Amino acid sequence: MSIRPVSVVGIGQLEVEKASAKSLRDLGAAAARRAMADAGVDRADALFAGNMLSDELQGQKQIAALIADQAGLYGIEALEVRAATATGAAALRMAYFAVASGEADLAVAVGAEKMSEGIATPALTKALDAEEEVPAGATLIGQNAALMRLYGQRHRVRGDAFANFAVNAHRNARQNPYALYRHKRVTARDVHSSRPVHPPLRLMDCAPICDGAAAVVLAPREEARAYTDRPVHILASSVATDRFRLQDRRDPLCLEAAALSAQAAFRRANVNRNDVSLFEAHDAFSIMACLLLEAVGFARPGQGWRLAEENAIGLRGRIPISTMGGLKARGHPIGATALYQTCEIVVQLTGRAGKNQVRNATVGLLQSVGGAASTVITHVFGA
Amino acid sequence: MSIRPVSVVGIGQLEVEKASAKSLRDLGAAAARRAMADAGVDRADALFAGNMLSDELQGQKQIAALIADQAGLYGIEALEVRAATATGAAALRMAYFAVASGEADLAVAVGAEKMSEGIATPALTKALDAEEEVPAGATLIGQNAALMRLYGQRHRVRGDAFANFAVNAHRNARQNPYALYRHKRVTARDVHSSRPVHPPLRLMDCAPICDGAAAVVLAPREEARAYTDRPVHILASSVATDRFRLQDRRDPLCLEAAALSAQAAFRRANVNRNDVSLFEAHDAFSIMACLLLEAVGFARPGQGWRLAEENAIGLRGRIPISTMGGLKARGHPIGATALYQTCEIVVQLTGRAGKNQVRNATVGLLQSVGGAASTVITHVFGA
Repeated sequence: MSIRPVSVVGIGQLEVEKASAKSLRDLGAAAARRAMADAGVDRADALFAGNMLSDELQGQKQIAALIADQAGLYGIEALEVRAATATGAAALRMAYFAVASGEADLAVAVGAEKMSEGIATPALTKALDAEEEVPAGATLIGQNAALMRLYGQRHRVRGDAFANFAVNAHRNARQNPYALYRHKRVTARDVHSSRPVHPPLRLMDCAPICDGAAAVVLAPREEARAYTDRPVHILASSVATDRFRLQDRRDPLCLEAAALSAQAAFRRANVNRNDVSLFEAHDAFSIMACLLLEAVGFARPGQGWRLAEENAIGLRGRIPISTMGGLKARGHPIGATALYQTCEIVVQLTGRAGKNQVRNATVGLLQSVGGAASTVITHVFGA
Repeated sequence: MSIRPVSVVGIGQLEVEKASAKSLRDLGAAAARRAMADAGVDRADALFAGNMLSDELQGQKQIAALIADQAGLYGIEALEVRAATATGAAALRMAYFAVASGEADLAVAVGAEKMSEGIATPALTKALDAEEEVPAGATLIGQNAALMRLYGQRHRVRGDAFANFAVNAHRNARQNPYALYRHKRVTARDVHSSRPVHPPLRLMDCAPICDGAAAVVLAPREEARAYTDRPVHILASSVATDRFRLQDRRDPLCLEAAALSAQAAFRRANVNRNDVSLFEAHDAFSIMACLLLEAVGFARPGQGWRLAEENAIGLRGRIPISTMGGLKARGHPIGATALYQTCEIVVQLTGRAGKNQVRNATVGLLQSVGGAASTVITHVFGA
């Protein structure tokens, strides 16, 4: 539990695109400025940037200082932080640290990723163990396919049973102006007939490669109303790791880092999972959404897929997920993803989600997954 | 000023080597375990890892979770943090955040770099602007050479005037069992006759490429004596950025980020530069050590080289620097460097530096430079 409570006082999102005309630095700077404008400020004490792939795709390091310069924030503290595919949430946690510790009174967490420049897959694969997994042919999609296959065998579930994860995400994306697939209609039949990219994973089980940037501004809770009439509070922030390699885990279908970080976050936030109004899960793959629902305790092991099939994950369901499109349909520009999710939770908890509004939304849960859940970062937000 | 004061309660260093037999993950895990053993603990709440080059040289991301697993720290929070060549100090700052905010009661900051695998230079160059500097042929060493040339022209100083930066570093390294060049004697003549690698920079103006790892354990100051009889306190931690590109700066010889972060750190620590007993500066290049001495205010602009020439930087001088060998002679395994420096400051402030002991050492200053000082991170330590 942090000593000084922290609130979100500004949000900024850019449209997710297959290939943005903006450079990576411009994406990051634009999102940061947009979030700062929303908070009504033109300075901040610190900026923390999340980006996973710029070393390879842009040949660029020190991206936080570059984004700060591009945003006109001369002199500001700027650092980058990473946790593979959970990188955006790591940036959020660092900004949270900065405000909670009293080191900053106003901190920007910004995520930016431009995956359209070059080939993302080899760089993504570096999230896995380069000595023991990658030489054996492992990839992120391959590991998720292996998890889905194992799940299907153990629980006697066909891949088609996961279809509503994608259908729900695409349905919700249609009202999100920042979503990559805001103009696309997707039915269960579309999912069933989509290309098997890595069986049993079909194309529609997988989040797309894309470009985007999003940001939030954090301030001490006691000062939040100086910036906004509708602050949303970070009730808890927690990170846990699992055994790094899938084969070292007792049960690969049991995402221990997700369970541990959720338990710690609920304890610190003093809420329980039944208090959660909506869950922005890391649905990079439908099997991952399913396993997270089980790890957090919304379903018993082997039952997560039923929440999709029964549409308990819908906007009026017991545990709405991907309420603005999720990674699947809003898009998954990696370093930016958790910042998009944070913005979406803020939109929901402040009653601004329009047709996608979850009723009586008071507590939002966010989970971000690094690699094959070697690292999981959980945040709990409250109105 | 952080809300909850933080202390260093354990340190761990491995020998810096040209090419370590250990893998990157083993280097990091060994340093973390060594620091934890020094603090008398076998668990911690969180681990923050500093590494700059593993994406390219080891094909590995998510290095913090990997090091945590390798160190046997199942379940622990683990994140990586970066600021190009200042990366180690960024990891230290994040661990400081974690404890200062109350999110962790025991946090490990570990830095590890294995530069002997592959070619480091192209990856190092990514610290510069990939759009506007690198296409014009800029490299880190090229920018430091340009700064040295400009300095020489403006202040009418020959390159040879910097020789004692290297001589002092090498002299001090001979009593440091972890230093790369602990068996090497270097005279001013050796410096003057060393190969001009990028004129006016000679080989002996530059820190070496090498492998290494170091770590510290942080705890709340009020609990520090539960772990050690001789805690060293982090009096301040501060980060500032400059205009990213050298050509955008009003005066490239004036390292604004170094000046800004030092001023902020001194203010928060409630000390002034005359209180500083020793300065572990970022002497990756002799010109950088010189410019940092000026930016912090130990010398007027154009006079920093005189501190070297007059040996005011020696162990008995007015402002001792590189007291255990510095980046030049202990070595500069990038992500680990600021953690080595932190360990060395702890050794000095606890009176364990043997023949290298700075008398009455009570305040230690640490500065880490990202790129050509686009980011500078300052820490102030007190006994």
